[in-house]
Amino acid sequence: MAKPIAIIAGAGPGTGAAIARRFARAYPVVLLSRSQGSLDPLVAEIEKVNGGGSAVGIPTDVTDKASMASAMDKVRERFGGGDELVVAAAVYNVASKFTRRPFLEQSEAEFMNSLEPSIKGAYNFAQATLPLMKGQGKQQYPPTLIFTGATASVKGGSGLAAFAMSKFGIRAMAQSLAREFGPQGVHVSHVIMDGVIDTEKTKEYSKDIPDSKIDPAGIAESYWFLHTQPRAAFTHEIDIRPYVEKW
Amino acid sequence: MAKPIAIIAGAGPGTGAAIARRFARAYPVVLLSRSQGSLDPLVAEIEKVNGGGSAVGIPTDVTDKASMASAMDKVRERFGGGDELVVAAAVYNVASKFTRRPFLEQSEAEFMNSLEPSIKGAYNFAQATLPLMKGQGKQQYPPTLIFTGATASVKGGSGLAAFAMSKFGIRAMAQSLAREFGPQGVHVSHVIMDGVIDTEKTKEYSKDIPDSKIDPAGIAESYWFLHTQPRAAFTHEIDIRPYVEKW
Amino acid sequence: MAKPIAIIAGAGPGTGAAIARRFARAYPVVLLSRSQGSLDPLVAEIEKVNGGGSAVGIPTDVTDKASMASAMDKVRERFGGGDELVVAAAVYNVASKFTRRPFLEQSEAEFMNSLEPSIKGAYNFAQATLPLMKGQGKQQYPPTLIFTGATASVKGGSGLAAFAMSKFGIRAMAQSLAREFGPQGVHVSHVIMDGVIDTEKTKEYSKDIPDSKIDPAGIAESYWFLHTQPRAAFTHEIDIRPYVEKW
Amino acid sequence: MAKPIAIIAGAGPGTGAAIARRFARAYPVVLLSRSQGSLDPLVAEIEKVNGGGSAVGIPTDVTDKASMASAMDKVRERFGGGDELVVAAAVYNVASKFTRRPFLEQSEAEFMNSLEPSIKGAYNFAQATLPLMKGQGKQQYPPTLIFTGATASVKGGSGLAAFAMSKFGIRAMAQSLAREFGPQGVHVSHVIMDGVIDTEKTKEYSKDIPDSKIDPAGIAESYWFLHTQPRAAFTHEIDIRPYVEKW
Repeated sequence: MAKPIAIIAGAGPGTGAAIARRFARAYPVVLLSRSQGSLDPLVAEIEKVNGGGSAVGIPTDVTDKASMASAMDKVRERFGGGDELVVAAAVYNVASKFTRRPFLEQSEAEFMNSLEPSIKGAYNFAQATLPLMKGQGKQQYPPTLIFTGATASVKGGSGLAAFAMSKFGIRAMAQSLAREFGPQGVHVSHVIMDGVIDTEKTKEYSKDIPDSKIDPAGIAESYWFLHTQPRAAFTHEIDIRPYVEKW
Repeated sequence: MAKPIAIIAGAGPGTGAAIARRFARAYPVVLLSRSQGSLDPLVAEIEKVNGGGSAVGIPTDVTDKASMASAMDKVRERFGGGDELVVAAAVYNVASKFTRRPFLEQSEAEFMNSLEPSIKGAYNFAQATLPLMKGQGKQQYPPTLIFTGATASVKGGSGLAAFAMSKFGIRAMAQSLAREFGPQGVHVSHVIMDGVIDTEKTKEYSKDIPDSKIDPAGIAESYWFLHTQPRAAFTHEIDIRPYVEKW
Repeated sequence: MAKPIAIIAGAGPGTGAAIARRFARAYPVVLLSRSQGSLDPLVAEIEKVNGGGSAVGIPTDVTDKASMASAMDKVRERFGGGDELVVAAAVYNVASKFTRRPFLEQSEAEFMNSLEPSIKGAYNFAQATLPLMKGQGKQQYPPTLIFTGATASVKGGSGLAAFAMSKFGIRAMAQSLAREFGPQGVHVSHVIMDGVIDTEKTKEYSKDIPDSKIDPAGIAESYWFLHTQPRAAFTHEIDIRPYVEKW
Repeated sequence: MAKPIAIIAGAGPGTGAAIARRFARAYPVVLLSRSQGSLDPLVAEIEKVNGGGSAVGIPTDVTDKASMASAMDKVRERFGGGDELVVAAAVYNVASKFTRRPFLEQSEAEFMNSLEPSIKGAYNFAQATLPLMKGQGKQQYPPTLIFTGATASVKGGSGLAAFAMSKFGIRAMAQSLAREFGPQGVHVSHVIMDGVIDTEKTKEYSKDIPDSKIDPAGIAESYWFLHTQPRAAFTHEIDIRPYVEKW
């Protein structure tokens, strides 16, 4: 029987990469991201550290149904189709487009586009992964689907209508799927990132205060911990923030 | 100078009609709904009770940009264009499509369609009405934009992913617009209907317990009250439920 | 049959006085406050404006069981005991002691004292008024019990542990009583004041920005509106803030 | 330099014992509970499994200032006083008294008594442990203070006013201390137990559905995980429930 796998959507540098590294210590990981270029070094790094065959990067636009279907075809080619393909963990970490702009200056196209990743992407990802999780129970840990949220998952903001709609929406989906699939043994969680994540892009932000940005490795440990919880003690939602964050 | 008007989207029978009747006691009302058939009797009733000229029904698909634009053209034809057109109150009461179905049985088309009313419709409506509200201050009450929510605005449910995404999304928009337009003097509110509303469609539900469904006239009074609040005491969110509701 | 009355605890200057004035337009009002001195001018004002016999001030420490009992004895003397005494509305507006101090510098006595008003006082007040509200139904509006909250009802703060415990606690009581007494027809509500209230004490705060503090008369209208809601459309919780407030 | 210790208040059978066992794998543990009888077998078990010297049970009424002070004296006798005494983790797991009774049937004494554990006890415990946590930074994990919550921490209930006030209050304290001590490097968390915990007392409840009660060992792992989070990725609040729980 094939080994269960983990799938991470939004496996770009930063949080996604850290999550990928963490789950790769236990499972072969499938990494989805728009560009091959951002996947290659991560796959190489994981394969080198963990030994061959443990990571595969598939350039995918998860908001596009055909692209997502094609990605799953490649997953089946690699890890086996039918009943032998088991998803131990799936992480939806695709960023919602953040734009803080006066509402009346946002065109319909701009507004709708910024909602696509969270809504259609999350739909596509959950549709593709949940059927490979249900009714398992033979794995070490309950199958787990985790969505990445943000401060704007629970609080709207001036100029942030589209972004907040995306993130509130993801949270609504996570809660709804948790209530539907929890009783079937699937662990669905939502993680609220309440602060700036420490990545290459944010390196100048608050750089004089040590640990004042969220550490991607710390995020990855939290995601991994959620995955390891037994079904008699599931956590649905956690917040993550640096110790100095105002909230 | 033209008299300020109220615009109600989702002015079908039930809640929308009750809100329309209430606001028509103070303003000429523009009623938007998909079908002319549901608008005609309401317009007739309001005009009869309140005297001529106080209600106009415009069949409109608010989720369609062109249809919404056409409706606003008709509003300008009737009530004047340019600076003389003032919106005192706008109510977004378009129902989100409620379907409780297993997530994996929902097609992408079905899922996305059910999100349209709340997302694109709310966007179109807010875009059309807010510019006619800003910087007024000469009216009796601050200009007001109210969104109708539901239990699923704050709580996801099994089989309700799409509906909850719609309603969480509307709430995100309401909060974001309140934070952006509040300081400009516009009152943006969100109302959580936590129970079954008493309409023709629901008349069999819990019919043996008096007042066990939400009374549309009671809803309308709450919306009207929100509109009358001075800017020194704005309420952003209220819940409405019958006294016997479990919550 | 005796006319139903309204009882306001915390009827000092500012919010309490405004609420008293508003309810006095419909009911004889009983005003409870620690000092006779703060009650006298308010009683005189209300009696003058509304005609004789409509207000009575009773110096009371609601956190003291005996003092509260004594107050209720005086109410019965004035308005009749037994079944003829009917409370139409009761408002618990006693301020929780606000102290922002480092937690480790707060003595046990100080900490516990600051909790008394909300906990023991709210208990005493609800115990005294609810039995005079139940099973009425013959009044114009459902009997109503309203608790005043604050930002700290839903959000703790650095140095604010005692104050937040008070206000979270009041909210817990309001929710619990709403769920218990709602089905009996009693309307229990909680109002979150999210901003600085415009009183004599706060007159210097933000004085250059018009309407930037919460208007007590606006608060009073909201409390009155809650009271008038029919049991088929009860609101349990509202927030109130000035249009310029950051939240 | 002395080894840092962990202190668990409410270390009775069930959750407290499971937490004690988990933290005893890393630290000497101090167990506080009202009765020596419930402490003895736990201490014996931990000392046997982990090797000598790792657990001490001190019968303590944490709601009593003198009793708590006496307990801390014993801790200092055993583990050293002054700067050498370092608390790595403190867990406040004292149960709030659960009574579901009609509000009007609850005497003042009963009502106030049921609040004592959460309010005075939590105050005493935080006052005693926080000074031994601040400014450490030399330990493997940031010093951690965790409070145990319940469904009633976020939702009042009919007949549950006192219990909900206790639990809302604890949550207010946890949030306030997190905002005050977080920037000093102390990790303050709150855990919402949303379901029945699997203990000797609850063994008959839902016994035919496997894993339908919260597993104390699962709780303990979650508390331990919170403790291990780096200060760049603190979680303040988590919920824990069984996969079959309705919520």
